[in-house]
Amino acid sequence: MAFDKKKARVANDKGTKKQYQPYMEAEWGFINHWYPAAFSDELPEGEVKGIQIAGVPIVLRRAKGTVHALLDQCLHRGVRFSAKPMCLNDETITCWYHGFTFNLDDGELSTIVAAPDDKLIGTTGIQKFAVEEVNGMIFVFVCEEDWDEEIPPLKNDLPIRFPENNDKFPHPLWPDTPSILDDGVIIRGMHRTGNANWRLACENGFDAGHLLIHRDNAIVQAKEWAVPLGIKPLDDQAIAIIEDEDGPQGFLNRYFTDSYEPILENPILDIKAYGQNPKYFRTSMFMPGVLMVENWPEEHVVQYEWYIPITDDTYEYWEVLVKKCNTEEEKKEFDYRFENLYKPMCLEGFNDCDLMARDAMQNFYADGTGWDDEQLADMDASVIVWRKCASNFNRGIAQPPRGVNGAKKGQSKDLAAAALGDWPGMDAYATGRKYDKS
Amino acid sequence: MAFDKKKARVANDKGTKKQYQPYMEAEWGFINHWYPAAFSDELPEGEVKGIQIAGVPIVLRRAKGTVHALLDQCLHRGVRFSAKPMCLNDETITCWYHGFTFNLDDGELSTIVAAPDDKLIGTTGIQKFAVEEVNGMIFVFVCEEDWDEEIPPLKNDLPIRFPENNDKFPHPLWPDTPSILDDGVIIRGMHRTGNANWRLACENGFDAGHLLIHRDNAIVQAKEWAVPLGIKPLDDQAIAIIEDEDGPQGFLNRYFTDSYEPILENPILDIKAYGQNPKYFRTSMFMPGVLMVENWPEEHVVQYEWYIPITDDTYEYWEVLVKKCNTEEEKKEFDYRFENLYKPMCLEGFNDCDLMARDAMQNFYADGTGWDDEQLADMDASVIVWRKCASNFNRGIAQPPRGVNGAKKGQSKDLAAAALGDWPGMDAYATGRKYDKS
Amino acid sequence: MAFDKKKARVANDKGTKKQYQPYMEAEWGFINHWYPAAFSDELPEGEVKGIQIAGVPIVLRRAKGTVHALLDQCLHRGVRFSAKPMCLNDETITCWYHGFTFNLDDGELSTIVAAPDDKLIGTTGIQKFAVEEVNGMIFVFVCEEDWDEEIPPLKNDLPIRFPENNDKFPHPLWPDTPSILDDGVIIRGMHRTGNANWRLACENGFDAGHLLIHRDNAIVQAKEWAVPLGIKPLDDQAIAIIEDEDGPQGFLNRYFTDSYEPILENPILDIKAYGQNPKYFRTSMFMPGVLMVENWPEEHVVQYEWYIPITDDTYEYWEVLVKKCNTEEEKKEFDYRFENLYKPMCLEGFNDCDLMARDAMQNFYADGTGWDDEQLADMDASVIVWRKCASNFNRGIAQPPRGVNGAKKGQSKDLAAAALGDWPGMDAYATGRKYDKS
Repeated sequence: MAFDKKKARVANDKGTKKQYQPYMEAEWGFINHWYPAAFSDELPEGEVKGIQIAGVPIVLRRAKGTVHALLDQCLHRGVRFSAKPMCLNDETITCWYHGFTFNLDDGELSTIVAAPDDKLIGTTGIQKFAVEEVNGMIFVFVCEEDWDEEIPPLKNDLPIRFPENNDKFPHPLWPDTPSILDDGVIIRGMHRTGNANWRLACENGFDAGHLLIHRDNAIVQAKEWAVPLGIKPLDDQAIAIIEDEDGPQGFLNRYFTDSYEPILENPILDIKAYGQNPKYFRTSMFMPGVLMVENWPEEHVVQYEWYIPITDDTYEYWEVLVKKCNTEEEKKEFDYRFENLYKPMCLEGFNDCDLMARDAMQNFYADGTGWDDEQLADMDASVIVWRKCASNFNRGIAQPPRGVNGAKKGQSKDLAAAALGDWPGMDAYATGRKYDKS
Repeated sequence: MAFDKKKARVANDKGTKKQYQPYMEAEWGFINHWYPAAFSDELPEGEVKGIQIAGVPIVLRRAKGTVHALLDQCLHRGVRFSAKPMCLNDETITCWYHGFTFNLDDGELSTIVAAPDDKLIGTTGIQKFAVEEVNGMIFVFVCEEDWDEEIPPLKNDLPIRFPENNDKFPHPLWPDTPSILDDGVIIRGMHRTGNANWRLACENGFDAGHLLIHRDNAIVQAKEWAVPLGIKPLDDQAIAIIEDEDGPQGFLNRYFTDSYEPILENPILDIKAYGQNPKYFRTSMFMPGVLMVENWPEEHVVQYEWYIPITDDTYEYWEVLVKKCNTEEEKKEFDYRFENLYKPMCLEGFNDCDLMARDAMQNFYADGTGWDDEQLADMDASVIVWRKCASNFNRGIAQPPRGVNGAKKGQSKDLAAAALGDWPGMDAYATGRKYDKS
Repeated sequence: MAFDKKKARVANDKGTKKQYQPYMEAEWGFINHWYPAAFSDELPEGEVKGIQIAGVPIVLRRAKGTVHALLDQCLHRGVRFSAKPMCLNDETITCWYHGFTFNLDDGELSTIVAAPDDKLIGTTGIQKFAVEEVNGMIFVFVCEEDWDEEIPPLKNDLPIRFPENNDKFPHPLWPDTPSILDDGVIIRGMHRTGNANWRLACENGFDAGHLLIHRDNAIVQAKEWAVPLGIKPLDDQAIAIIEDEDGPQGFLNRYFTDSYEPILENPILDIKAYGQNPKYFRTSMFMPGVLMVENWPEEHVVQYEWYIPITDDTYEYWEVLVKKCNTEEEKKEFDYRFENLYKPMCLEGFNDCDLMARDAMQNFYADGTGWDDEQLADMDASVIVWRKCASNFNRGIAQPPRGVNGAKKGQSKDLAAAALGDWPGMDAYATGRKYDKS
C-alpha cells in the first residue's frame, strides 16, 4: 500500500514553490553580498590565507595592518596564490609560480618578477574585493567580476540592531543584545566546514521545529533550561518580514509573543519538556544567510551564525558570540566562560547536533530531487518565509564556477581502496600509482 | 596486429545477449524480492539499524520482539531515522530531527512531537516493508512503493530444499543438507561490503571456471581436498533450470553426474589438480541472487551466499552456514568449528579470494562497456543461464534511486589529497576546509 | 571594476590556439609512442607488474630475461592479470581468475587452464606491445590495437644526442652529456604519481618562467648556484624546432646564447638573483613528452624527465640522471652522490616544488575551462611552441578509455566521511557498509 503523498495537504505546494524558484537555483549561493572571511587573529600582519566563498576563490593578505582581498587565481595559469604565499613588498602579492605580481589596491598586474617589461603589465589584472574589518572579524564583499554599482554598507548584510529596533520588535523578557558593529563589543567564535549544501544549513539554523535535537544536550541539562519540545506559529504575526531598502532584509520569529505557542508536551507520545529555568531567546535570519539568536547562550549575549557556501556541497559554518564588555575584568570573565563553557558546550556540543543534522539532509537534496520530494508542515512556516525572502532580496545567484575546487566532481584515483586502506590485492593495483617516498 | 575479436566464436553473441537484456539493465538490482537484512543478534530488543538494499534505504527496529522495517527516509526533510535513532514507545519510530513519528505497523504519520495537531497527521506516511525472522535471520521484502499484489512466501526467494527435491536432484555422494527454514537448524555467518556491482558478485559465486583462485587456499591445502582445476559442462543436462511458479526459480549445476567432467590437468601447461581427498559439493543459484553450496565446507552443512545490491557499485556479501544440530553438544561443536575453522579459513580465507575477484572486475564493467567487451567461453554456460533466469524470473528492475547515498556520485572535497594524507601544499589548500577540532 | 581580459594583449589569442587544437584534445595523452614503463630492477626475473599509460592498462612480465608487455585486461572478464600474477611457464601469462592463458610472444590465447580444448583457443588473444630494454630502463611502444605500421625506433621518441648534434646546437659552456642509449652509461632515477593532467606537468618541465619556485631550494642555496630569476627569450632564434622525419621531434631552448637574456633583478620589486657560482644548463623537450636538462645537476650529467599520462588527471613523473662512467670507481662515486645528494636534494627536494606546482594548476584546467581562461605571456613562448610541436608531431591522440581505472569517475562510497574519519553520526550511517574485520 502506498500513501498518496501528492494528495496530502502540504505546506509547500506547487504554487508556493514557484515563489521561491530563485532560491532553489542558488546551489552555489548568492553573490554580491558581504560574508565573513576570517577572524582578525587568523590573519596576522604579513600573512596570506586562501578561502572560497560561493565558488569564488579569494586570497586575503594583511599588509601594514590593512586586509586586502583578491581573486585567489592567478591570471596566468590559474594557480592559487595562497597555495604557497609569496609577498615581496607591502603593496603587492606575487604568484609563487611565475612571478606575476598584482597590486593589493586594485588587482592590477604591476610587474612580473622575471619579466619587468612584459607588455601585459599595467593592462590587466585580477578581481579585487572590498573588505571591512570590525571588532576582530574580516568581511569581504563577494561580487561578480563586472559588479559596477556602489557597494552596499556592511550593515545591510547583518542582522538588525538593538536598541534601535526595540520599538518595532520589543523584547521585554531579556536585555538588549549588542551588534558586531557596536563599539566596545568583544567577539569570540569559531568556524569549520560542513558537508552539506549551504541552504540546508541555513534552514536548520532558525527552524522552529528542530529543538528536539537539542533536548538531550549537556548544556540544556546542566542549566535545566526549560526548552520546549517545539514552538508553534499561531498566526500571521508570528513571523515579521524585514525589508528596508537601505537596511537588513530577512525575517524575525516573534517568539515569546502571543503569536507563538511553546509546545510543552505530546500526550500521544507521553513526552514532556524538561527543565525548570525559563530560557528566553529569539531567532531571526537575514540576507545573505546570517542568523541572530538573541539572549543566547546567556543574557546580554547574542549568537550570530553564517552558513557560507564554499561549493555546492560544502559550507563554512561560522558561530560567534558578541558581548559588550565595559571593563577589562568583564572581558576576562567572558573570555573565560567562552573558552571553558560556551565553546565546548554550546558552539561545539550543542551546535554539533546541528552540524550533523545538516549533513544528514545532504543525500536527500544532493541530486536535486529533495526540493520536490520533501513534505513541509506548518512548523516550517519560517523555512518557507526564508526561501521567499532569499528569492526576493538576493543581489545575484552565484553561477557554477569554472576552474576551481568543486567545479568538477570525481577523480580517477582508486579512492575507495585508498580510503579503506587494505583492499585485498591493492598493492598489486597500486603499483607505480603512489607517491614514491623511498 | 589486432585479433579480430568479433569473428572469434563467442558464447555470448548478439542473439544471446538479447535474451538477457533485462539483466543488463538491473544495475541497481531487482526489486519486489526477499533479501536478508540482518542477523537477529545484530538487532537486539529496542534497537534500530539502517541498511540499504537495491537503492532503498531501510530502517529496522525490534520492538516487543517483533522486527519492523520502514523506509529509512523521513517524509519531511529526507534524513535517515537510523542516523540517530529515536523511539519514544514500542509502536512508533520518531525522526530525531523534527519529531515526525510513524507507526511501526503501517508507516502512517501518527503524530509530530511538537505539533500533535498538525493536519498532515493521519493523512500520509512512509513505506512499510514485510519482514520475516527465521532461525536467527531477518528477511525483508524490498518492494516498490506501489506494490499491491500478495507478497510471495519467503521460501520462493530461497534455494530449493532437501530431502523433498531428492527425486528430482539426487545426490548419492553426500548426505542431505538442511535449509534456513528447517526446524532445529543452527545458522552461523557474517556479512560485509564489496566494491563491485552485485551482478559481478553473483556470477563469481557459482561460476564453474573460477576454481583456480582457490587452488592455493590454506583450507584446501590443509584438508588435501581434491579440488579439480575446473568443471566442464558436457551436455544440455549439465544445468537444470528450476522454474516452479510457486517455488524457487533459478538453476542447479548437476556436478558429479555424467553431465560434468572435472578437469584434473592441463597438459599444455603441465598443471595438475592437487589433493587426495574427494570433495563432493554442488552449486545452485536462485532468485533474487542466492547461492547454495551443498555439502560445504563439511558434510551435512550447506553454505548460502547473497550478493545484495546496496548501490550500483557496492553490494553486501552474505555468507551463512546451516547445520541441523540435534543436541546441545552438537551445537557447541559446530559453533566451535565455525569460530575457529570455518569463519577464519572458509568464509574469510577461502572466500576472500572471491571478494577480491569481484572487485577486480568492477573497472571493466563500471562504465557499462564490459557487458559488450567481455568474451565468454563454454565454461560460462552457467553464467549465461543465470543471466537468462534473472531476466525471466525477476519481479521488477530497481530504478536508479533519488536522494539516497549513491544516487549522486562525486563530491567537491579534495579527496585525493585527504586520502593520500601528505600532498605537498595541502595545508595551505585546506585552510578553513576541515573540521575545526581545536 | 573588471579588467577587460580579452582586450589585453595575450600571447595565446584565438588564432594561436587554433594551431594547437589537437594538443587541447589530448586529455588522455598521445598514443603510438614509446614510453618508459619501469626500471629494469623493478621487474626481476619471473615477476609481473601492472601499469597504465594513456588509459591503456599494460602488464609487464620478465621471462628468461626478456621483458614482455601485453594488455593488462583479460579478454574474458576484463580483470587485470597484474592484480594477482599467475605464470605457469616462461612462455605465457595466465589469468588468475579463470585460467585464460596467453602467449607472451604474440598475445594469442594459447590455452585455458581448466578447458584445454575450448574452441576460443588459438582464435583470439590480447594486444601485445613492443618492448625495448636499455641500460636499466624498460620502454614500451604504447599503440592503438589496430596499429599496423612499422614501429619507429625508440631513439625517435627520445631527446637528440650529443656529440652528434654539437654542430647544430653547440654548447661551449659545458661538456657533452650522454644519452640513455649510449654504451657504458649509468642511469639512476625514480618515478611517482602526480595528481594533474600530464600536459600541465610537461609544460612545467621546460617553462622558462618558473625558476622562481626553485629560488629557495636547499640545493641551490647550498651550492650557491647563480640561478637567474627567469630567462627571457629575445628573438626568433631563442627556440629551435627539431623536426627530423627520422629522429626526435620537439624543440630546444637556446639558453646561454644571445637569444636569451637571464633576468637577474626586478627593480620594481627590489629582488635580485642569489648565488655566485655560474650554473649553465639547457632544456629541450621532445615527443611524446620527454624533457632533457643538459649539464644538470652536475657537469657531464643529464636529467631526463617524463610526464606520462595514466588517466586524464594523474600522470607518472619520471626523473632519471644519466652519466657515462668509465671505471667501477666512477660508477660507485656517482651512485653515492645519487643516493645521498641528488635523490634527496634534486629529484626530491628541488623537483618536489615542480610536482606541487603542477598539482596546483589542476583545478583550473580539470573542467576544461583553463585552456580558454589562461593568459599566457612572452615568457611562455616555449609553452606555445611545445603545444604546436605536440599537435603536429604526435602519432595519435589517445581516446578516453573503456572499462579501466579512471574511465568512470566517482563512487558511491561515502568517501568524505571515510577520509575525514570522524564525521559525527558516521557510525550509524556506516552500519553494514564497511569491511567486516570481526
